Amino acid sequence: MRDIAVFSGSAHPELAEEVCSHLGVPLSPTRVSRFANDCLEVQLQANCRERDVFLVQPLVKPVQEHLVELLMMIDAARGASASRITVVMPHYSYARSDKKDAPRISLGGRLVADLLVAAGASRVLTMTLHSPQVHGFFSVPVDHLHALRELAAHFSQYDLSRTTVVSPDLGNAKEAAHFARLIGADVAAGAKQRFADDRVRISSVIGDVAGRDVIVLDDEIAKGSTVFALLERLRELGARSIRVACTHGLFAAGALRRLSEQQDVLEIVCTNTVPVPAEEHTGKLRILSIGPALAEAVRRIHNGESVSALFDAQPIA
Amino acid sequence: MRDIAVFSGSAHPELAEEVCSHLGVPLSPTRVSRFANDCLEVQLQANCRERDVFLVQPLVKPVQEHLVELLMMIDAARGASASRITVVMPHYSYARSDKKDAPRISLGGRLVADLLVAAGASRVLTMTLHSPQVHGFFSVPVDHLHALRELAAHFSQYDLSRTTVVSPDLGNAKEAAHFARLIGADVAAGAKQRFADDRVRISSVIGDVAGRDVIVLDDEIAKGSTVFALLERLRELGARSIRVACTHGLFAAGALRRLSEQQDVLEIVCTNTVPVPAEEHTGKLRILSIGPALAEAVRRIHNGESVSALFDAQPIA
Amino acid sequence: MRDIAVFSGSAHPELAEEVCSHLGVPLSPTRVSRFANDCLEVQLQANCRERDVFLVQPLVKPVQEHLVELLMMIDAARGASASRITVVMPHYSYARSDKKDAPRISLGGRLVADLLVAAGASRVLTMTLHSPQVHGFFSVPVDHLHALRELAAHFSQYDLSRTTVVSPDLGNAKEAAHFARLIGADVAAGAKQRFADDRVRISSVIGDVAGRDVIVLDDEIAKGSTVFALLERLRELGARSIRVACTHGLFAAGALRRLSEQQDVLEIVCTNTVPVPAEEHTGKLRILSIGPALAEAVRRIHNGESVSALFDAQPIA
Amino acid sequence: MRDIAVFSGSAHPELAEEVCSHLGVPLSPTRVSRFANDCLEVQLQANCRERDVFLVQPLVKPVQEHLVELLMMIDAARGASASRITVVMPHYSYARSDKKDAPRISLGGRLVADLLVAAGASRVLTMTLHSPQVHGFFSVPVDHLHALRELAAHFSQYDLSRTTVVSPDLGNAKEAAHFARLIGADVAAGAKQRFADDRVRISSVIGDVAGRDVIVLDDEIAKGSTVFALLERLRELGARSIRVACTHGLFAAGALRRLSEQQDVLEIVCTNTVPVPAEEHTGKLRILSIGPALAEAVRRIHNGESVSALFDAQPIA
Amino acid sequence: MRDIAVFSGSAHPELAEEVCSHLGVPLSPTRVSRFANDCLEVQLQANCRERDVFLVQPLVKPVQEHLVELLMMIDAARGASASRITVVMPHYSYARSDKKDAPRISLGGRLVADLLVAAGASRVLTMTLHSPQVHGFFSVPVDHLHALRELAAHFSQYDLSRTTVVSPDLGNAKEAAHFARLIGADVAAGAKQRFADDRVRISSVIGDVAGRDVIVLDDEIAKGSTVFALLERLRELGARSIRVACTHGLFAAGALRRLSEQQDVLEIVCTNTVPVPAEEHTGKLRILSIGPALAEAVRRIHNGESVSALFDAQPIA
Amino acid sequence: MRDIAVFSGSAHPELAEEVCSHLGVPLSPTRVSRFANDCLEVQLQANCRERDVFLVQPLVKPVQEHLVELLMMIDAARGASASRITVVMPHYSYARSDKKDAPRISLGGRLVADLLVAAGASRVLTMTLHSPQVHGFFSVPVDHLHALRELAAHFSQYDLSRTTVVSPDLGNAKEAAHFARLIGADVAAGAKQRFADDRVRISSVIGDVAGRDVIVLDDEIAKGSTVFALLERLRELGARSIRVACTHGLFAAGALRRLSEQQDVLEIVCTNTVPVPAEEHTGKLRILSIGPALAEAVRRIHNGESVSALFDAQPIA
Repeated sequence: MRDIAVFSGSAHPELAEEVCSHLGVPLSPTRVSRFANDCLEVQLQANCRERDVFLVQPLVKPVQEHLVELLMMIDAARGASASRITVVMPHYSYARSDKKDAPRISLGGRLVADLLVAAGASRVLTMTLHSPQVHGFFSVPVDHLHALRELAAHFSQYDLSRTTVVSPDLGNAKEAAHFARLIGADVAAGAKQRFADDRVRISSVIGDVAGRDVIVLDDEIAKGSTVFALLERLRELGARSIRVACTHGLFAAGALRRLSEQQDVLEIVCTNTVPVPAEEHTGKLRILSIGPALAEAVRRIHNGESVSALFDAQPIA
Repeated sequence: MRDIAVFSGSAHPELAEEVCSHLGVPLSPTRVSRFANDCLEVQLQANCRERDVFLVQPLVKPVQEHLVELLMMIDAARGASASRITVVMPHYSYARSDKKDAPRISLGGRLVADLLVAAGASRVLTMTLHSPQVHGFFSVPVDHLHALRELAAHFSQYDLSRTTVVSPDLGNAKEAAHFARLIGADVAAGAKQRFADDRVRISSVIGDVAGRDVIVLDDEIAKGSTVFALLERLRELGARSIRVACTHGLFAAGALRRLSEQQDVLEIVCTNTVPVPAEEHTGKLRILSIGPALAEAVRRIHNGESVSALFDAQPIA
Repeated sequence: MRDIAVFSGSAHPELAEEVCSHLGVPLSPTRVSRFANDCLEVQLQANCRERDVFLVQPLVKPVQEHLVELLMMIDAARGASASRITVVMPHYSYARSDKKDAPRISLGGRLVADLLVAAGASRVLTMTLHSPQVHGFFSVPVDHLHALRELAAHFSQYDLSRTTVVSPDLGNAKEAAHFARLIGADVAAGAKQRFADDRVRISSVIGDVAGRDVIVLDDEIAKGSTVFALLERLRELGARSIRVACTHGLFAAGALRRLSEQQDVLEIVCTNTVPVPAEEHTGKLRILSIGPALAEAVRRIHNGESVSALFDAQPIA
Repeated sequence: MRDIAVFSGSAHPELAEEVCSHLGVPLSPTRVSRFANDCLEVQLQANCRERDVFLVQPLVKPVQEHLVELLMMIDAARGASASRITVVMPHYSYARSDKKDAPRISLGGRLVADLLVAAGASRVLTMTLHSPQVHGFFSVPVDHLHALRELAAHFSQYDLSRTTVVSPDLGNAKEAAHFARLIGADVAAGAKQRFADDRVRISSVIGDVAGRDVIVLDDEIAKGSTVFALLERLRELGARSIRVACTHGLFAAGALRRLSEQQDVLEIVCTNTVPVPAEEHTGKLRILSIGPALAEAVRRIHNGESVSALFDAQPIA
Repeated sequence: MRDIAVFSGSAHPELAEEVCSHLGVPLSPTRVSRFANDCLEVQLQANCRERDVFLVQPLVKPVQEHLVELLMMIDAARGASASRITVVMPHYSYARSDKKDAPRISLGGRLVADLLVAAGASRVLTMTLHSPQVHGFFSVPVDHLHALRELAAHFSQYDLSRTTVVSPDLGNAKEAAHFARLIGADVAAGAKQRFADDRVRISSVIGDVAGRDVIVLDDEIAKGSTVFALLERLRELGARSIRVACTHGLFAAGALRRLSEQQDVLEIVCTNTVPVPAEEHTGKLRILSIGPALAEAVRRIHNGESVSALFDAQPIA
Repeated sequence: MRDIAVFSGSAHPELAEEVCSHLGVPLSPTRVSRFANDCLEVQLQANCRERDVFLVQPLVKPVQEHLVELLMMIDAARGASASRITVVMPHYSYARSDKKDAPRISLGGRLVADLLVAAGASRVLTMTLHSPQVHGFFSVPVDHLHALRELAAHFSQYDLSRTTVVSPDLGNAKEAAHFARLIGADVAAGAKQRFADDRVRISSVIGDVAGRDVIVLDDEIAKGSTVFALLERLRELGARSIRVACTHGLFAAGALRRLSEQQDVLEIVCTNTVPVPAEEHTGKLRILSIGPALAEAVRRIHNGESVSALFDAQPIA
């Protein structure tokens, strides 16, 4: 293993720049061309030979374009004799396709994992997978980070003495409990049922939220159906204030604007695992950077140091 | 594809016999020898050449012996030119190892899936996996059955007018809801947290159970920690009667005896995906057979008919 | 191998319908959903179990969407226990990426071939690959058809006594010669150099075209740069009339309109390997159907009859 | 390749400790848990990232438990990004299953080799395989050591002037001849036929043993059937004294006690490739350590030095 | 699986013809071309699509030419969509390279097995492998025949009342014992040591040969060093008559002529697994045909009937 | 990656020696043995463990012998724990088999690429492939060099003011144009059609050759049919002088002698990618060494430096 080389696809070059700046290495240029027949060609424009190559690309909209582009970057690095190829994919959107709940459907979470390996990926660095089992869809080593420390650092600026962290989903309440311990708060969870991609019901909330400062914590917010359903319950139950936090701020279908328009939502906090277009930003939005965490993980991967040691949660205060 | 050949490992020959009897085919004999050095040798004692081979083996205790035996059966069938090898594994115990919740642990659910394929398995027929994502750990087609129809048929003998099906775990409440629809009952769910393999807490129950005839429904019961935790809550909440049902009746550490000793538990219902030793049976135990369902699935797999069509749930009454 | 099942992706359902109609089998429905996070899910809505499955999808614009959709269709068919999966890809656009003419570029023609196989493709049926070597990029059997018989049948309606078939490229003149033999015409070829994706020069034409009725024959027309360059030469050399023919009518960047505006171009002939939007059709365009040829190839593949025998060229007249 | 990390499974931790002590590196801890459902989970409790990992586990009784444990250790090391994983398996018991002498039997020696590779093994270090062809069952590099130097060093304490080394099996007499050269002795061999796992006949001995001090040399002693058969012949032929030596002292079914009870057997010598329970030791047993040899091989593998050079036999005296 | 198609490489077309004639199917033609640069091209000249293809080619001199030719035949059949490809390789000469008895040597027996599979072989039909472990070098099913019944049928024409079958090698005496049982004779074996490819010593013979009619039985005779060494011993021990038999009559370096010149060798019997050039035949040579046995095995493989059943040895007389 | 180790097969040891001498490392010895049954065995006679191994072997006549030998060298290096195995194959003769122009033929260019990888090759270093698409036949990284700089350096000794470089084939004229730019000459190309391995017609020459000093440039010359066909045209067109140059001087069927006998051919220039037997040399032959270029490429591969940077063509004068 010799020098490191970091490339970015077109999905989120700002994040790649930030990771490189923390690492103190240049972001190597990538050229993506589109031919008259709509096919892509990728050229990695720096020597990869025997390099420890990192390719930064979250699978965000347009997902299929970014996926094929990523596969070509991997293939180009392999053909150029990279000694190791780590896919840095802060958001793995296909992780949502993790079960066969209907006959004869594709299992996208597994298929895309296999495609990345078929193209030549040696390992994957990702963040807050939709379900922890998706880790097992990969046949190469995965470093699976979370953003709880970044979120905790942000909220530690507030008086948290009457705070309850609320997970919209009891199944995933473990993460919320972990986060609550980090900031010294209580935890509660919604009882959620999903009927379709965008139809969700939360029948009740387990734990006390009346008169509490609530931080809603979810892994991602896309159309926001889950959060809106939870807000209804929280209002009924008399929450004192509401803040919304997530790792992946996808904000599809005007979700960010609609959430910001809720009077009782004081703040919407996400990280920059995915880019939020500047023109969609609102006054209530706070975007935390996971660039330093990704950079530190890349540094440890490159140097062969333990990554799990880094992400063991320690109480912050 | 020509004739069918069904073999059983030593884990559950009674079930294999039953499947064969429903199919109207003989159970072909398997010889398992153990050498002086404790190594196993397996011989399939009927022609496998160009046959559609089915190997019946749930991964029950002693799990490692049964797993290696199964791998050898697969290998023997492959070496003997089977045209297709379906592993009929009604209980896949390693599905419990489905996430990396600590650094540097083996991910047994994925590893064993890969070993079965490395040994030569063409496909898998299994029942009620611990989490639906485990389906995605296999790189070969999986038919994933459930036993809800068998359980529903059993309970339809009772007056179900005041019945509530209770899932101990909100995350898996979907299955309980499905089952409740089948028998025309209400549904509720516990809010469960797991601290260790055998330490579990259920903080509350979502849904009304006071004065109701409760059917507790879980995928499997091993030590029974989850069920005992739920019983405490149900008693506090004033359930009228309690029945306990599950697919996989593993009953480790005296769980069956201890459960049977609970006065208010009227009945303990499981299926025969795993064998329960006759000497451990109690008066409250009812074992339902999934033999007919497995046999029908095998028949459809062999004939190329849809298996999902078979297991679409239809209201029973 | 049992019954046949044909599915279409969203790239060219009309062609799939036509193939099915010639085969006398129904086109099985495919459901493609797009989630809020822009990920796709594919469901094949007819039984695939032990079926001989054919998936029709040319890789046309938007190529990346159609490619990922196709990979998911393959994966769904594999997971649903198809006995064989043939990708019917009448236009393989990534075949253009067939050589490493710059360092560290992706070799799309090989990569996409490997992805199709990784997803589960058993074999490929395609038409008029950009270069014949691309056949060797696939590790599964490929049936490689051409459309010369369809083109010949079309042109046989004319008086061909003074006709010369002109290949714009001497390297590919073999195909033009083959076609010329089919229709009893002479053959000529341009000396072409390509400087970039859309910059091409034809320095001269080998063979006599003065006073001849010329049929320009190419494998595909995208932006049309090659054809326009050739038209200049043909005019200088005194061709009597000009018709333009190709297999793949991609017609990017207004090429079809611009070609149709050329006074001396009497006719533009292509096949329906790729769809041409109805609103772009012009009075000079003739689209020949390769549906019957594809259907016959599918029938022979399904029945295990020789496909090469079908496409051996026989003089037509 | 960076630092070395050595882990032991539960089969033979003493040997692993000894190897580490010779290497001057700590033995990293391994945690093996067994769940209520009898499934295992393995955690390697030291950083493996980019480490040169060595996993020490002979496949001794209970073989299936130790095999699955080893597969999980390999899988855990792979998932934890080990740069190379060497399985140190001083005794490969499944090497006995090396031929198909009956139809439809598993070929355990090949199957287990494939499973180790499927789990992620990069290479294997083993000792005295039952037949040299088993080397070819592995698709990864194998370093195949023998213990002849350790055995020779032990016997060099005696007057060897009238010594004959006797192989119970002419087929494997090459090893005995090699050993005899090392200690300056003569060589002889039995003519052995095996009827079953534990039924053996030695019809005669080739070479002179009358009045000789005999050292019986075999690769392993399990039930001892072969040695007992040979002892009968040696007595008939008038051997002066008898010592018994082997690499792998498995001693199943009371073999060690029964051998020790033979008056004319002066000594039973084996190595510690497999553990012999302290309570089974007898006064005639001598266990030689192959710890230094394994440690030296590990050191050379780690440093990229020739291992074959180490084990070229040189006369000792 | 549909019709059968049998092709022959250039190694032994007579045998392929004979197999086809017994099967009642035509031998499909193969075209082998050699280009100016000495590269080969193979064309299978009959439809392979969905056929059960059998490729007949023993690996005889010139071995490398025949091996590459065979690999190309396999590749051509795979590319032409054969449903199954069985390599019929009556003599697998590379089986001799079955152990690593020196550092850094190729293990030809395993390598060539892997190459056959890499080219696309689905299964192998072979005869009398040099050691039974070589079976385990293949990752595809192997049918491993022997020629003992053919040899027994031949010798049953003689008075066998004073006959002893002598294996030159005690390690392989099992085969000789099997053969002796078939013809009702005694068995004996030489104690053989090999020093180099062509230097061999037989120190003694176990079993009584004085005054006996000896049939020397070996798997193959190449230079004949082993047989000549054995002849010396047999003469010293007073054998009454000597016949020599083997499966593979390679007869390199004038071995056939030199053996025929031995006065006391009455007959040299081999089979036609490998061709013996007509001009080398001698009056003492008898070549038995294994064509019927191969044909029957092919028939059973094609029909999915047990092959082991066929070759279970039954006493003949 | 540690030290480098270079081995040569028997195809071209002089070239390997020269590469080593430029690298300043010894050529490690290889032993190739041939057994009585015509099988090969290869031993690499220097430590390969963790070495960066380079195996030099162009695939020249006898191609099949050299190919199998190379496969065994790769296998031996892999079994001996080489950390990386680079096949240095200056002439890849099987690249000529790059398309399926007849049904059911082997595709040698792809098959042999797959065999090299199956044997264990990590990467390939080759020169002037017959068509650039062949690069895509390899699933491992390929460094594809050309010899234009060596050829240009040679011709720069002449007055090139009236020189035209002529490619016999318009399809490959790009290389000729590249070369012409290097030496500041004009370029022209023949219009070539191939009817069979040795029957070729060149119908005309595009570009001006009358009164010019012509350098005919082709990738290889085997039987020379193409060059002879071009010479006829050049004479008709009044070329002033003719020199013939190629990378691979195969010179089969007396081509070198016959070419040398042409009065108007002043010089025949090739490189030493393949050996030309000394006894076939003629007074007109000049062999340029690509040893320095190969050595520099090996050095850069070993050190992880860019190879493409080296071979970017720069005008020489």
